[in-house]
Amino acid sequence: MSSGNNAPHPARLLISALPDFPLVRPGDDLAGLIGAAAVRSGMTPVDGDVVVVAQKVVSKAESRIVDLAAVVPTPRAIAVAAEVGKDPRLVEVILSESRRIVRKRPDMLIVEHRLGFVMANAGVDQSNVGPADGIERALLLPENPDGSAEGLRTALHARFGARIGVIINDSFGRAWRRGTVGIALGAAGLPALIDKRGEPDLFGRALRVTLIGFADEIAAAASLLMGQADEGQPVVIVRGLRWSAPALPGAGLIRPEAQDMFR
Amino acid sequence: MSSGNNAPHPARLLISALPDFPLVRPGDDLAGLIGAAAVRSGMTPVDGDVVVVAQKVVSKAESRIVDLAAVVPTPRAIAVAAEVGKDPRLVEVILSESRRIVRKRPDMLIVEHRLGFVMANAGVDQSNVGPADGIERALLLPENPDGSAEGLRTALHARFGARIGVIINDSFGRAWRRGTVGIALGAAGLPALIDKRGEPDLFGRALRVTLIGFADEIAAAASLLMGQADEGQPVVIVRGLRWSAPALPGAGLIRPEAQDMFR
Repeated sequence: MSSGNNAPHPARLLISALPDFPLVRPGDDLAGLIGAAAVRSGMTPVDGDVVVVAQKVVSKAESRIVDLAAVVPTPRAIAVAAEVGKDPRLVEVILSESRRIVRKRPDMLIVEHRLGFVMANAGVDQSNVGPADGIERALLLPENPDGSAEGLRTALHARFGARIGVIINDSFGRAWRRGTVGIALGAAGLPALIDKRGEPDLFGRALRVTLIGFADEIAAAASLLMGQADEGQPVVIVRGLRWSAPALPGAGLIRPEAQDMFR
Repeated sequence: MSSGNNAPHPARLLISALPDFPLVRPGDDLAGLIGAAAVRSGMTPVDGDVVVVAQKVVSKAESRIVDLAAVVPTPRAIAVAAEVGKDPRLVEVILSESRRIVRKRPDMLIVEHRLGFVMANAGVDQSNVGPADGIERALLLPENPDGSAEGLRTALHARFGARIGVIINDSFGRAWRRGTVGIALGAAGLPALIDKRGEPDLFGRALRVTLIGFADEIAAAASLLMGQADEGQPVVIVRGLRWSAPALPGAGLIRPEAQDMFR
């Protein structure tokens, strides 16, 4: 899955948002938009850069949009919606994106997404989906976030020749702690997880619990520039990271159910 | 608890580790060491900087060290130790730092720490505590991480005159996701949590779920430079963040048990 990482820790990181990124529309060539914005701002990617892209713009470019008026909720969705106090059409969309409900409470629906993420509302979002034109839309997660990341990585590599990593990030709630933090929904070209188990510590003892959520930490750092509310800064470049472990896609960050004590 | 944050998102962050930080010993003046390292490297703090300090060096400076040879495990600790396959003396120390056990499995003890953190082993660490001199030591979390952060903030402010934030960070495992990420164990001088609820999105709709784990995202970003294994880079300065919300200590990030569906 992952292996050791002997790269030294960086002395500094520079994290920059691509300025004046345009609003993304369904069908847009997102890699093209990122490349153009990078050129415009003089921030073309170099080897070792990690390009972090907000889930919302990936989902929009991939047309992962549902017109709620066209959704006919099932009896189950209607029952769950009544229980949690949500729009039954939205609950229908959430359930259709989910394997199962993990917890439900008023205004709170935590599910296991079909991709394995345990998250609120299956990541289905009603804010910022489009103009307030009276059409109620919901935005779904990308079909395959690791694939989306790999597609962007390949396109940006073809354009700039740099060996980069790409992360699709999103804001997730957590058990036990308040507030959302950025996490890596998908990743390509970098180790999403770094395994330090068995490496000696400073005093020669073997370290024990040392799987590092590398891509999640990068995703959280990028979130500090993106914010959560708008599309103002959906693309962030992290420069200065080092890694030697082989690439591992973001799905490697999902804890298998058999190892999960909190599902 | 927290209020809106109208500060614009930063265009760039510069995250730097203080180089050549000395090994910290019990009783050391940590603020003094940080100040000296900052001066030495030409990285004296300026208004708006956030100084992130690894829990381990805070705990060491605060002499939060237990000699395991002096620990006499209770029958309960002996029973739990047998069940999870750990040293009974270590389990005794873990239990004495905990309110209760949340989950236990072989080689895994997840507890509610006396401060409210749900975490593995109550944060008690046996690696990197001191030289391999035959004495088995365990390192505990700081007595009061928010107080530790406030103490460092006050001392650094007195020395440099800058209005800074301070975060004590640690690496935590998570439910549902593999790998540890940096989180804020304590914070001072900045809003640990930022409340964006009620702010309009780009299209004028009110945002709903938008409590941001600000200090946790900063802690995760700093972890990318610190690593987890050693003390090589235990102090990291994050420059470029902006906030307008009032300061909220790190304890604000702990989800109250009554609101927690996963304890």
